[in-house]
Amino acid sequence: MSLRPFETNQVVGPHDVKIAVHTVGVCGSDVHYYEEGQIGPFVVKEPMILGHEASGTVIEVGHAVTHLKVGDRVAAEPGIPDPNSRASKLGLYNLDPAVRFWATPPIHGCLIGHVVHPAAFTYRLPDNVSFAEGAMVEPFAIGMQSAAKARIKPGDVAVVIGAGPIGIMIALAALAGGCARVIVADLARPKLDIAAQYAGIAPVDVTKTDLVEHLLRETGGWGADIVFEATGAAPAYRNLAELACPGGAIVLVGMPAKGTAELDIVRIQTKELRLESIFRYANMYDRAIELIASGKVDLKPLISGTFPFEESIAVFERAAEHRPTDVKLQIVVNG
Amino acid sequence: MSLRPFETNQVVGPHDVKIAVHTVGVCGSDVHYYEEGQIGPFVVKEPMILGHEASGTVIEVGHAVTHLKVGDRVAAEPGIPDPNSRASKLGLYNLDPAVRFWATPPIHGCLIGHVVHPAAFTYRLPDNVSFAEGAMVEPFAIGMQSAAKARIKPGDVAVVIGAGPIGIMIALAALAGGCARVIVADLARPKLDIAAQYAGIAPVDVTKTDLVEHLLRETGGWGADIVFEATGAAPAYRNLAELACPGGAIVLVGMPAKGTAELDIVRIQTKELRLESIFRYANMYDRAIELIASGKVDLKPLISGTFPFEESIAVFERAAEHRPTDVKLQIVVNG
Amino acid sequence: MSLRPFETNQVVGPHDVKIAVHTVGVCGSDVHYYEEGQIGPFVVKEPMILGHEASGTVIEVGHAVTHLKVGDRVAAEPGIPDPNSRASKLGLYNLDPAVRFWATPPIHGCLIGHVVHPAAFTYRLPDNVSFAEGAMVEPFAIGMQSAAKARIKPGDVAVVIGAGPIGIMIALAALAGGCARVIVADLARPKLDIAAQYAGIAPVDVTKTDLVEHLLRETGGWGADIVFEATGAAPAYRNLAELACPGGAIVLVGMPAKGTAELDIVRIQTKELRLESIFRYANMYDRAIELIASGKVDLKPLISGTFPFEESIAVFERAAEHRPTDVKLQIVVNG
Amino acid sequence: MSLRPFETNQVVGPHDVKIAVHTVGVCGSDVHYYEEGQIGPFVVKEPMILGHEASGTVIEVGHAVTHLKVGDRVAAEPGIPDPNSRASKLGLYNLDPAVRFWATPPIHGCLIGHVVHPAAFTYRLPDNVSFAEGAMVEPFAIGMQSAAKARIKPGDVAVVIGAGPIGIMIALAALAGGCARVIVADLARPKLDIAAQYAGIAPVDVTKTDLVEHLLRETGGWGADIVFEATGAAPAYRNLAELACPGGAIVLVGMPAKGTAELDIVRIQTKELRLESIFRYANMYDRAIELIASGKVDLKPLISGTFPFEESIAVFERAAEHRPTDVKLQIVVNG
Repeated sequence: MSLRPFETNQVVGPHDVKIAVHTVGVCGSDVHYYEEGQIGPFVVKEPMILGHEASGTVIEVGHAVTHLKVGDRVAAEPGIPDPNSRASKLGLYNLDPAVRFWATPPIHGCLIGHVVHPAAFTYRLPDNVSFAEGAMVEPFAIGMQSAAKARIKPGDVAVVIGAGPIGIMIALAALAGGCARVIVADLARPKLDIAAQYAGIAPVDVTKTDLVEHLLRETGGWGADIVFEATGAAPAYRNLAELACPGGAIVLVGMPAKGTAELDIVRIQTKELRLESIFRYANMYDRAIELIASGKVDLKPLISGTFPFEESIAVFERAAEHRPTDVKLQIVVNG
Repeated sequence: MSLRPFETNQVVGPHDVKIAVHTVGVCGSDVHYYEEGQIGPFVVKEPMILGHEASGTVIEVGHAVTHLKVGDRVAAEPGIPDPNSRASKLGLYNLDPAVRFWATPPIHGCLIGHVVHPAAFTYRLPDNVSFAEGAMVEPFAIGMQSAAKARIKPGDVAVVIGAGPIGIMIALAALAGGCARVIVADLARPKLDIAAQYAGIAPVDVTKTDLVEHLLRETGGWGADIVFEATGAAPAYRNLAELACPGGAIVLVGMPAKGTAELDIVRIQTKELRLESIFRYANMYDRAIELIASGKVDLKPLISGTFPFEESIAVFERAAEHRPTDVKLQIVVNG
Repeated sequence: MSLRPFETNQVVGPHDVKIAVHTVGVCGSDVHYYEEGQIGPFVVKEPMILGHEASGTVIEVGHAVTHLKVGDRVAAEPGIPDPNSRASKLGLYNLDPAVRFWATPPIHGCLIGHVVHPAAFTYRLPDNVSFAEGAMVEPFAIGMQSAAKARIKPGDVAVVIGAGPIGIMIALAALAGGCARVIVADLARPKLDIAAQYAGIAPVDVTKTDLVEHLLRETGGWGADIVFEATGAAPAYRNLAELACPGGAIVLVGMPAKGTAELDIVRIQTKELRLESIFRYANMYDRAIELIASGKVDLKPLISGTFPFEESIAVFERAAEHRPTDVKLQIVVNG
Repeated sequence: MSLRPFETNQVVGPHDVKIAVHTVGVCGSDVHYYEEGQIGPFVVKEPMILGHEASGTVIEVGHAVTHLKVGDRVAAEPGIPDPNSRASKLGLYNLDPAVRFWATPPIHGCLIGHVVHPAAFTYRLPDNVSFAEGAMVEPFAIGMQSAAKARIKPGDVAVVIGAGPIGIMIALAALAGGCARVIVADLARPKLDIAAQYAGIAPVDVTKTDLVEHLLRETGGWGADIVFEATGAAPAYRNLAELACPGGAIVLVGMPAKGTAELDIVRIQTKELRLESIFRYANMYDRAIELIASGKVDLKPLISGTFPFEESIAVFERAAEHRPTDVKLQIVVNG
């Protein structure tokens, strides 16, 4: 008997839409819950539907919804805040502690036939953006939030530490967002090769090249305008300040396993660096879709495999292998 | 007897370089001085060398100069401020009233065989940036200053009013600087055709299309994140606010002939728009060169003609015709 | 038979509170509706309760409300946006076109015995902030929004054009918000006298003193970091740019009667000025209350008269006289 | 034979002034060099004049100086950058590696009868600012730089960790710069008592009170908008993120003895905090003087003792005791 997506019988409220889910991307966090049943304080205690990277088609609209109609192809933003919270009123809805985020226990995810979702967090895809790309908006939004926090000035030079899926998303967002060039550093050659296929991204294999020396040479001794940390690995934090230029910025995206990291405070101060940090994203979906639709950002080369829903278990097993050549695996629910 | 560039016998100070001028672009202001001998309060009272868009080769370096050497190919920034001024200390050196700017009376310009120039305002060109491109850095820096002031967020949508040389420079800087797409509006079809050859730029012929209606349709009724005004024409100011989205920005680049313009204050307030303005540029040359060298910005299609120094008078005569198909004419001094 | 406030029978929803209104301030817009029945496109077609500057006591709380309880003394923010709008999600809820604002037709105001209001827009008053001060938070929030948009740097010098109620609110918010001193300019001596009672505010009577000359002398020829326009009068716009320093800011708060105003674009550009504009306020109530409670801002001297509800008509008649010595008249509904 | 200040015979260049030094404050770094002869990489190898906090009177002006004249009372900014550096051109002159800073070996300080100084870094004191206050501008400028980097919004609540001289300077700059109130935390009661004499500063004795709990209670569970770290002590870094509100800022001013510190990255990310750092100051002297002259900031209570030059050795010996009741000791050179 084949695997089929669950169905829910959620009611479509006046401000909601019902979406027939088309494609769902598999994220590292999904794999974590699949394997460990837990990420930090978030513990899966009852069966939970995974998935938070979804595209699909609107099949029902609440009576108060004006910007969407049945048949619209859409991407769905997975975190729904309390609109009454202080953070939401400030536009920082991602920081609302009451946010309900797909596939973060105990909230079900979107790897299911249909979802009911607030229209305000559902974004129409232009005709030239595929469902596969629509399901890539979520991870790309993390890159976008990183690039937005960096406050890139046109012509900046950036470094991204880490060529994993998020590192590449950051590099692409930084390039599209105004950087002249982005140097991406990693230990894993296959990851660097994937990043290097994009014009404007220069890979650095840190097993062979001293990153600080390389960067200073590349920038006439000045340093990078922006340093994105996308690994969470302790050694990466040590020389962040050496990579940055006077008055530059460091954006902390990677999450250290133990929570903390040792930073070189005095060196940071000597250059008066600014450090930014991100937590998911807010107000990035429409901007991300704009960049994909305009052709400035091409995420298709990052889709490493597409599978029917029935093969979901095999997909999760493969994702759990963490193959360096896999950036994103996607599952088609309603093809 | 053929026309030859003047020679000066300026001494190379410890912080200066001497540059053998290679290429000089002709700017609208040069043509103005050529034809009228005056721009507003700036009056040519004695013979003045024109030109302020220069590239060339370093042929002598002051003893305190460390970042340049003989043989370096360079672009030269034409405005030299007093480093002791309050504006310079703030990093706003373009706003220093004591700034000495090439070909702004009574300061001579760079259409001459050699110039002595402060090394701090002389920028090395990478090997893949030609002298012709090097002489384009100056007008592009105006686009860069406009884009920087706009504080573009990745994925913004921009409108540029005016497809003249500066309008196109702004559009290119805005695209490279993070915009997903730029709509350029003008009355002149040939200018729009030149702009439209770039991916990401959508032309709008305002003799045929209502720009406000078009833009609102293109942005789902929201408006443009940024509106660049690059004409200085009175009618352009009238509906700037209608084009912008709530919380958006207007950047005033065009200069009205009579100095003032009527703005729709209440409509600006209803959307809480921010208006920015620019005066030349500061700290933009290295960023501009980064974007040209990285291939993100290609200025070569904007060079409409290249001529030897001996034909300078013919070049100025042609520039004075203001052909809509001419974006930039360049003169090669030392080829 | 004495005048009594209306009663409504609005239901208290889960996120609402019911407030027994204590004090209501009379605003220029209330007087406008009282006298003309119209402000621009907003026309009073049916009887409408006036008032939007309210303090009071919570007498009932919806079951989902956690930060307020019965008995709390509060100030109520009069504009309620649609939380699903694009502007609200961005934190720009004041710019949501669907906002429902007290006493803006056809929405009733708060000059009534009880109001039902969203708890998210209801702010607890500390014990040391009186009801009278609580009803001053609304007009002060306009000053706060102006000061916030100015992006004051500690030690800035500001000029406020106009010493009416809003001009004074701006001056106080600018002082509390980081300015070293604020020069307030007006034609009316009584208004200047009221402003001048505050340390840090220097009045300039423009019937006797040339403001530009005075300001340049006061700032060593540099100009003001920030110029707030709070009159909407055509002549005021003419020399805004002359008052500002290079790289400074102009904040447009006053609304010209005809909607538009002539601005000196070229002079604005020569100094690379930034212009900001405001529309009401967002996320300012808690900040305003903080400043009142801390004692940094004392609004009590601006309360020119307090009257019982039964004398409301006389209050409106007096407000319609626009006495220069009256800053704010208040009505006590439930004393 | 009594101790007399050295005299130099430096030539007054066209852009310089000669200052008869009046008052010099003793800084922790002076004491460090006095006691240890070294601060990190900066080693005193030859006899070096101490002092970098100076006020005095102009006694000679270079011929190109326009904004100062003989007899002007002034404060002198101690760090002189290379105006040709990339950092200086950006307005970040404090980050220029070539900066020459008084009493940082091998550069002599200002505890001497006369100094020749660039006029661009010499600031006129208004009549109502004393020499004693003029010599306080330097340490206050560090507080100003911290407050400026924080980008305070009017009505912010701030915490300062550490009530030493710099902690108090930060608290005063933050209050003057827009904060509604500042909570200052320390272990030493005498230091807290000094801070607590200022309206708007609330002391917290961390030996008795849990700072995180206290702060959350004081802010309704939201946290501080800005957290200033002014100790460099390892334990202080641990809960910086717990003190801050969502979207808030941490400003790193204290310098850890070992250079590095352990930061709680994940908690920083969960609130999307921004971290800023400072290195001395740039463009702060005129702003600092504005705030002192306007009366918004009163530094006089922080002057713990004033001594004639002849007692300098005793002053340094006392400073080396680090009495918790001493904030600033000053030496009068030419009284």
